[in-house]
Amino acid sequence: MSIFKINGKEIFYELDGDASKPKLAILNGIMMSTRSWVPFMNTLKENFQVLRMDFFDQGQSTKLPGETYTHDLQIDTLKALFDYLKIDKINIVGISYGGNAALAFACKYQNYVNRLMLFNSTAYTTAWLKDIGDGWNLAGRTRNGSLYYKIAIPVIYSETYYQEKIEWMRAREKVLTPIFSNPTFLDAMERLTVSAEAYDVRALLKDLTLPVMIISAEQDTLTPVMDQKYLSENIKNAHWIKLPGVGHASMYENPLIFTSLITGFFLVKDTDYII
Amino acid sequence: MSIFKINGKEIFYELDGDASKPKLAILNGIMMSTRSWVPFMNTLKENFQVLRMDFFDQGQSTKLPGETYTHDLQIDTLKALFDYLKIDKINIVGISYGGNAALAFACKYQNYVNRLMLFNSTAYTTAWLKDIGDGWNLAGRTRNGSLYYKIAIPVIYSETYYQEKIEWMRAREKVLTPIFSNPTFLDAMERLTVSAEAYDVRALLKDLTLPVMIISAEQDTLTPVMDQKYLSENIKNAHWIKLPGVGHASMYENPLIFTSLITGFFLVKDTDYII
Amino acid sequence: MSIFKINGKEIFYELDGDASKPKLAILNGIMMSTRSWVPFMNTLKENFQVLRMDFFDQGQSTKLPGETYTHDLQIDTLKALFDYLKIDKINIVGISYGGNAALAFACKYQNYVNRLMLFNSTAYTTAWLKDIGDGWNLAGRTRNGSLYYKIAIPVIYSETYYQEKIEWMRAREKVLTPIFSNPTFLDAMERLTVSAEAYDVRALLKDLTLPVMIISAEQDTLTPVMDQKYLSENIKNAHWIKLPGVGHASMYENPLIFTSLITGFFLVKDTDYII
Amino acid sequence: MSIFKINGKEIFYELDGDASKPKLAILNGIMMSTRSWVPFMNTLKENFQVLRMDFFDQGQSTKLPGETYTHDLQIDTLKALFDYLKIDKINIVGISYGGNAALAFACKYQNYVNRLMLFNSTAYTTAWLKDIGDGWNLAGRTRNGSLYYKIAIPVIYSETYYQEKIEWMRAREKVLTPIFSNPTFLDAMERLTVSAEAYDVRALLKDLTLPVMIISAEQDTLTPVMDQKYLSENIKNAHWIKLPGVGHASMYENPLIFTSLITGFFLVKDTDYII
Repeated sequence: MSIFKINGKEIFYELDGDASKPKLAILNGIMMSTRSWVPFMNTLKENFQVLRMDFFDQGQSTKLPGETYTHDLQIDTLKALFDYLKIDKINIVGISYGGNAALAFACKYQNYVNRLMLFNSTAYTTAWLKDIGDGWNLAGRTRNGSLYYKIAIPVIYSETYYQEKIEWMRAREKVLTPIFSNPTFLDAMERLTVSAEAYDVRALLKDLTLPVMIISAEQDTLTPVMDQKYLSENIKNAHWIKLPGVGHASMYENPLIFTSLITGFFLVKDTDYII
Repeated sequence: MSIFKINGKEIFYELDGDASKPKLAILNGIMMSTRSWVPFMNTLKENFQVLRMDFFDQGQSTKLPGETYTHDLQIDTLKALFDYLKIDKINIVGISYGGNAALAFACKYQNYVNRLMLFNSTAYTTAWLKDIGDGWNLAGRTRNGSLYYKIAIPVIYSETYYQEKIEWMRAREKVLTPIFSNPTFLDAMERLTVSAEAYDVRALLKDLTLPVMIISAEQDTLTPVMDQKYLSENIKNAHWIKLPGVGHASMYENPLIFTSLITGFFLVKDTDYII
Repeated sequence: MSIFKINGKEIFYELDGDASKPKLAILNGIMMSTRSWVPFMNTLKENFQVLRMDFFDQGQSTKLPGETYTHDLQIDTLKALFDYLKIDKINIVGISYGGNAALAFACKYQNYVNRLMLFNSTAYTTAWLKDIGDGWNLAGRTRNGSLYYKIAIPVIYSETYYQEKIEWMRAREKVLTPIFSNPTFLDAMERLTVSAEAYDVRALLKDLTLPVMIISAEQDTLTPVMDQKYLSENIKNAHWIKLPGVGHASMYENPLIFTSLITGFFLVKDTDYII
Repeated sequence: MSIFKINGKEIFYELDGDASKPKLAILNGIMMSTRSWVPFMNTLKENFQVLRMDFFDQGQSTKLPGETYTHDLQIDTLKALFDYLKIDKINIVGISYGGNAALAFACKYQNYVNRLMLFNSTAYTTAWLKDIGDGWNLAGRTRNGSLYYKIAIPVIYSETYYQEKIEWMRAREKVLTPIFSNPTFLDAMERLTVSAEAYDVRALLKDLTLPVMIISAEQDTLTPVMDQKYLSENIKNAHWIKLPGVGHASMYENPLIFTSLITGFFLVKDTDYII
């Protein structure tokens, strides 16, 4: 268990695997924590030294009640963590909130990033996504865990997957409902959601030159394919992949594809062929 | 203003246009009423005699507090209305809840239906869609109109449309928030939502022989394209169209396409050509 | 049988239906003639006065051996035909070569056009499509009808349709092979193909303000969906529809959708609703 | 340079990389040879011992003039090569003809295959694809290299890629035209094309249990997305990925994605997570 102290606050992080391997940072989606990646760690550690970290208000990092902040706080803190760990070049993969943070990080500190992989990400927070987030926050304030579960969880899975795994989902519901009734968790979720409202890197994309792999899930109802289409059309060195039948929580719906894509993209060299 | 009385209850309906023209029934989505179609009526009346009606718990039809019912009540009532109006053959178009009702009606009373057009519809209520509906109902019980708006409205539009029309959406929000705080409305919405939970016509589709036009909106996050793909693969005489960039409330996002599709499909004869 | 004489040449055209109905011009794909639309005429005449015409080098219009020309010749001749028929406003639908001609016509003579509907069309002839056309022409010069059939016909149908209708296709092959061995036909086809090489209306699209309905067939391998995506993103008043499972010869693969779309789009008025 | 002798004929193969690494066989598309993979070899050798081979009638393997054969000859020969090399378990990736051969191999000799990756493949040769192949063969018999190029090359690239890389394509045309005029090459191509006509593994797919990664290119006009949709719906342990904007020769259009997908999929272990 590792703690990075900054400005009197704590960032929880975990650095696993052999330091001789290529470095890979994984950035959490909004409800996730370093623990969410445990199922993938054995696989990823085979080829990478993996850095996981909880953003402020996530997992075991410091909660920031009463504070209002933006992605910038998370990104600047991530850079400070890299400096603290003497990392001057790293691969970054992020999903959703973490994908957006990864992209914003690359726009601000491109020299630190070798390659970038964005699952279920977007270039900015539209009014549509902001209003959906407002709905989550208003639901959170009721402290009704069942309500929060019903509005926040089904939409992050594809209809097909949720239907097929319904027994597992019902088990998840039992686990999540008390968490989703917890004021500390819910208030942190609200701050995280609010922190994403001003997110907008559209004007910065033109300066990105590093290779960026963009992953769309065709059944993603929160950051739909149109969002990644925009990214792919506005990033020079973009590579775009779609996952048919998969929803927003793409790494859980198809773990084999998730670990394959990460492992392949961050391992291979550029091919000279072409053009 | 027309009322059809049945079993001591009232169904509000409106029959507009020239009786010499082909008959067309339009069935409401769950939050809609006969008034929701007003913008399209001048156009549709040019070629059809149009029947609109409010299902029980919608608009000006009788509210059913304390009752639990399924689509069957709505469908059987629709048939009774047709009989009352001496309609023995009619075209039917429905959207979402109304599309599912239209499809269930055709499965049960195929002889009454000339052609069928389904916007944003599905063959059954998955656990995924049921849980989303549960979320709406739990939100409704808070009587918090802002919460209800935020969880029920953005998701029925495409991200692009909502973003582009944000001022109009903010105006809608002002109009809808008091309605969405109204216990009578919210309790009716809950009963309607519950009435759709058992909806499942999968086993009946094989017996449909009439022409069915199925319309998908590619950005529909409530009844995604996969749902209509299933319909198109399991209905013999199915014809399938996709609307790129459009969300669940497809008729509002592209009224010209909406009225064009209806007008064309219900007017034209079969083409002899083929095969 | 009607002939329009212009500059010593003849344009064959047919004007059918009641002059009191809205006027509709249908423009042929490259291998088509006025006869190709016969299966749809009874349906279309119910709501429109329909003008069909053969471009130069098509059907019964004058062949132009030894001449090199572009779309402009066809378009200017179409305008002359409209003037001759005292048509100053008309709806136009075109497919493929005819869709491109329709679009080029609207860019040049927008005042003549009420609404425009483009099946399987594109904004310009890419090097890719030009080279495919070159392949047709080189095949044509062999006068081997079987070769010409095999390279020109399967690709205009979806794999699914061709496979399902294979007996009908084998019958078509018998009919078409002698035609595809005929030097007069093949030389005309070569001139038509060459006439499309310089087609490029990209710079003109921004001035179009009339309503344009764009129809994509998802299995179209000659003018793929990307081409219509470009049109839909660069025409102000564009409306876009996709036909799943359908190939380049979309009107033959789904005649009911074809006639429905035309009939609806050119009949309905704009809806006031919105925004 | 390695030769495997079998029944008086020769199979040319190349085995590169460290024998301690996982084994990977790459199977050629119809016009390809072991040399076609050279641009990717440095990358792939980093993580795999790579086996390339030319099927009969390809590259440096024996030509079979006067013989008629099916995929089975190629597959059984591949198995004999594995036995000769004492390979009893291997990963296989194939594209197009080679993907179909890989799939047929796995259906017949599943025990030999660890994982399978299919680029631009299909479950059977439809009448549509057969007729397209007939067109290639009729064109080949003219010995006109320009004709063969125009009908066989543009269609294997996406319209966008071909247009953007047109200068490189013109250079390819110069290189390929003499090859496409060579009777020995063209006759071999005809036999290879004919060998694929009877390909049909639909009835065998249900017995596959190994992990199969299926890659679609959205702009593939020869083995369109519908073909891989069928595979993904009929193979138990299927994983499906789509490449937007990419055509049939997917590895050339996006080499970074190609090498990433192969490297990742064949390196990673299964993830325990789930369900």
